[in-house]
Amino acid sequence: MQVDIGNALAAVADPGVTESGLEALDGQVGTAHERISAGRESGEFGYAALNLPETTDPSAIRSAVEPVADAGAVLTVGIGGSALGAATVSTALGPAAVEHRVLDNVDPAHVSAVLDGLELADTAVHVVSRSGTTAETLANFLVVRDEFEEQGIDWTEQTVVTTGSDGPLRDLADERGLPTLRVPAGAPGRFSALSPVGLVPAAIQGHDIEAVLSGAVAAAGQLSGSLFDCPAYAYGAVSYALDRRGAGINVMMPYVERLEPFAEWFAQLWAESLGKNGGGQTPVRALGATDQHSQLQLYRAGPRDKLVTLLRPRERPDQPVPDPGVEPLAYLGGTGLGELLDAEFEATEASLAAAGRPNVRVELDRLDARGLGDLLFGMEAACILAGELSDVETFTQPAVEWGKRAARGLLGDGTAPEADAVADKHRFLVE
Amino acid sequence: MQVDIGNALAAVADPGVTESGLEALDGQVGTAHERISAGRESGEFGYAALNLPETTDPSAIRSAVEPVADAGAVLTVGIGGSALGAATVSTALGPAAVEHRVLDNVDPAHVSAVLDGLELADTAVHVVSRSGTTAETLANFLVVRDEFEEQGIDWTEQTVVTTGSDGPLRDLADERGLPTLRVPAGAPGRFSALSPVGLVPAAIQGHDIEAVLSGAVAAAGQLSGSLFDCPAYAYGAVSYALDRRGAGINVMMPYVERLEPFAEWFAQLWAESLGKNGGGQTPVRALGATDQHSQLQLYRAGPRDKLVTLLRPRERPDQPVPDPGVEPLAYLGGTGLGELLDAEFEATEASLAAAGRPNVRVELDRLDARGLGDLLFGMEAACILAGELSDVETFTQPAVEWGKRAARGLLGDGTAPEADAVADKHRFLVE
Repeated sequence: MQVDIGNALAAVADPGVTESGLEALDGQVGTAHERISAGRESGEFGYAALNLPETTDPSAIRSAVEPVADAGAVLTVGIGGSALGAATVSTALGPAAVEHRVLDNVDPAHVSAVLDGLELADTAVHVVSRSGTTAETLANFLVVRDEFEEQGIDWTEQTVVTTGSDGPLRDLADERGLPTLRVPAGAPGRFSALSPVGLVPAAIQGHDIEAVLSGAVAAAGQLSGSLFDCPAYAYGAVSYALDRRGAGINVMMPYVERLEPFAEWFAQLWAESLGKNGGGQTPVRALGATDQHSQLQLYRAGPRDKLVTLLRPRERPDQPVPDPGVEPLAYLGGTGLGELLDAEFEATEASLAAAGRPNVRVELDRLDARGLGDLLFGMEAACILAGELSDVETFTQPAVEWGKRAARGLLGDGTAPEADAVADKHRFLVE
Repeated sequence: MQVDIGNALAAVADPGVTESGLEALDGQVGTAHERISAGRESGEFGYAALNLPETTDPSAIRSAVEPVADAGAVLTVGIGGSALGAATVSTALGPAAVEHRVLDNVDPAHVSAVLDGLELADTAVHVVSRSGTTAETLANFLVVRDEFEEQGIDWTEQTVVTTGSDGPLRDLADERGLPTLRVPAGAPGRFSALSPVGLVPAAIQGHDIEAVLSGAVAAAGQLSGSLFDCPAYAYGAVSYALDRRGAGINVMMPYVERLEPFAEWFAQLWAESLGKNGGGQTPVRALGATDQHSQLQLYRAGPRDKLVTLLRPRERPDQPVPDPGVEPLAYLGGTGLGELLDAEFEATEASLAAAGRPNVRVELDRLDARGLGDLLFGMEAACILAGELSDVETFTQPAVEWGKRAARGLLGDGTAPEADAVADKHRFLVE
C-alpha cells in the first residue's frame, strides 16, 4: 500500500495539514505506536487484531472446510463484522466457480430470494456469530436449516460454524459434531477479517488465503514509529488531522468494482471504532468512476467537510475499446476501459485539488490476494492509530446495546425499559 | 408516503426544530411551492420533472420494447442519472424472470464478468445517454456491441436507445433503425426515473410501469402550500431546517433490501442538486437492519451532525422463524423475520431519539409499483423544495465539468488545461 498525502497538505487544500503540523503530529504517532506495540505484545483485546496475520492458522481453516470442499456455492450467515469481512475478501479476490452469497439482513423477501437462488444440496453454509445469540443471524440460520430439512437435505453435513468459546451456537456445533472455528478472542468483529470470520468462504472458493495472510504479515512489518515511514500510519494520522480541521467526513472511493464491499467494511471499521464521545469521522462509501456522476458535484462544491480517499491498483488487466467510427468519440478509439478508468481517477483527484478539497491517494501494486491482505491490515492499523490519537476506546461499541435490548424487549424477551420507550414515541405525522 | 417528523423536533432532538420554527418555515414553504408550481406550469427545466408522471407515455415505452419482449435478460448501459433510476425501479419492484443487469462503470474486469454472465443471444440492451457522448457509457456500449458481433449476434435487433434529440447516439439509432425513446428535455438525469430512462428495463421485465406512474400522479396531487399537509414538503423542509442547525449529513436508511438502490438514487438526487456554493447535506446510504451492526454506534454516539431517515413499508409478506429449541433464543420462536426487522426499525428509531439524535420516519403502505411511484415523486419534490429553501440552482451540476474535460484531455482529446493540472500534482508519497 502506498499513500500519497500531497493533496491533503495546506499548500493544496483547505482544510489541509501544514508540513510543520505533520512534524508535530509525528511525535504523537510515535507515542501511539509504542502503545499499539505494547498492546500487540501482551495480546490485549483489540490490539491483538494486528497479530492475526501471524496467529491465524490457514491449515485449520482448510481442515474445517474439507467436508464441504466440493460445494458449488457458499452461503455466509452473519451480520456486521461477522459478514462484511467475508464479503470483502471473497469479492476482492475475484469471481470464482463457487459463488459466495451473504445473508446479513432479515428482510423476509430477500432471504427467500437468496435461498431460492441456491441449489441447497450443493451449498455450504458458514454461520458466524461470536456470542452465538445475534438475533438476526440466529433467526436466519433457523430459517436456512428449516429450508434444508424441508428439501430433505442434511444441513449438518454442509455447515461450518465460526463462533466464540461458548454460547448456543457452540453448543449446537458440539452436539451435532459440526466443523467449528473460533472467532478470535482478541479482536472485535470489525477487526476479524484476517481470521476464519473473513477467510472461510474464500477458502471454500479455492482462493489463496495463505497469500492474503502473507500480504498482511508484510504490512505488519512496515509499522514504525513515524508516519513518514509507514503508509498505514500516514493514512490514519492525516485522516485524524483533517477531522480535527473540519473534515468530519471520510469518503472511501475505490476505482475498482471488486472493492465495493471493501468500502462497506471500511465504513464499519471507521464508524464503530471512532464514532464515540461526540466525535469520529463519518465514513461514506463511494465507487469510482460511477459516483463521479452522482457525488462529485457535492464533493467539489459542497461544504469543506470531506476528505476523499481515492483507491486503486496500479496495474490491472485492460479491455480495449473498439473504434467508435464517429468523430465526437474518436478519442475513445485505441484506449482501454482500464485506461479510461485511470484517466477518470487522475482527473477526479486533480479536480478536487483544483477546488482545494483535501484528498489522499491510496494505491496497491495489484488487487491480488497479497495486495488485499496489505490493504486490510493497513486500514486496520490506520484506524487503531486514529483511535489512539483521538483518545477513544477503539475496540468497543457501547452505543448499539440500547437498541438491541429494545428490539428483544419488543419481541417479548422479558421486560426492557428500552422497549417501553418505543411506545412513548413523540409523533408528528404528515400524511 | 407518510412522514413522521416527531423525532426531529427540538423537544426530542439536538439539533432539532421547534414547532414555532416550523411555523415560520411554513411561510417559506408556501412561497417555494408557488415558485415550483409556476415552473411546472411553464414547463421550465427541472421543475418540469414533476410533470413526468403525467407526460411520460407508458404505451410509447411498451411499443419501443416490443421487439425485445421475449428477452430473458436486460442490460442497462448508462451511468449516474442514466442508470440509478432504472436500477432503483427494477430492484424495488422485486425479482422477475427477466434479470436486469447494469453496466455503470468502466472497470474492465467487471464489464467482462457481467458480459460473461449473460446469454447475449437472449439479452436486450438499453443504452442511455442524453448527450450521446458520455465517455463511460459510449465506451461500454462499444465493448458490448463488439461482444455481440464476436458471438455472431445482431445487436441492432436487441438494442433500445434512450437519448436526446441529437448527438452520436441519436445518429446511430436513426442510421440503424433502432427503437428510440427520448430522455425528457425538461429534467436532469437524476430527476428522470419516471421516464423511459428509469422505466424501460422494468417494462421489459413485465413490471407494471403504469402503476408506478399512477402512484406518482397521486403524490403530485398531494403537493400543497404547507408542509403540514404535504409529506414530501415536510421531509424537504425538515431536512433543510436540520441542515441549517448542524445536521450536515442525511443518512437514508431503508429497512427493506429492495430499496438498497433507492438509497443510491436518493444520494445522487440530494448530492448533485443541493451540493453547491459550499453547502448541501451529504447523503449517506445505509441499510437496516444490517447497518445497525456497522454504523449505529457512530449515529448514536458520534458528532451531532446527522439526520437519520428511517424508511419502511407498513406491510410486507413475512416468513416465520422456526422454534430455536434452546432457551437463550426462545424469544425468536413464533416471530417472523419481518417482525424482527420491524422491531429493529422501531428499536433503532427509539435508540436514536433516546440519545437526542434527530430522525424522521418515512413509511409507504406497501412496496409495490404505486408505492414506489409515490416514494420517487415525493423525494424529488422534497429535494426541489429544499433547493428553493437553500436558494441554489437545483438542476445544474457545474462542478463535474472540470473533471470530465481533464479526463478527455488525458485520453488525448485536444488540449485541455485541466489535463495539464494532473501532471502538476503535488506529491507526498509514503511507501
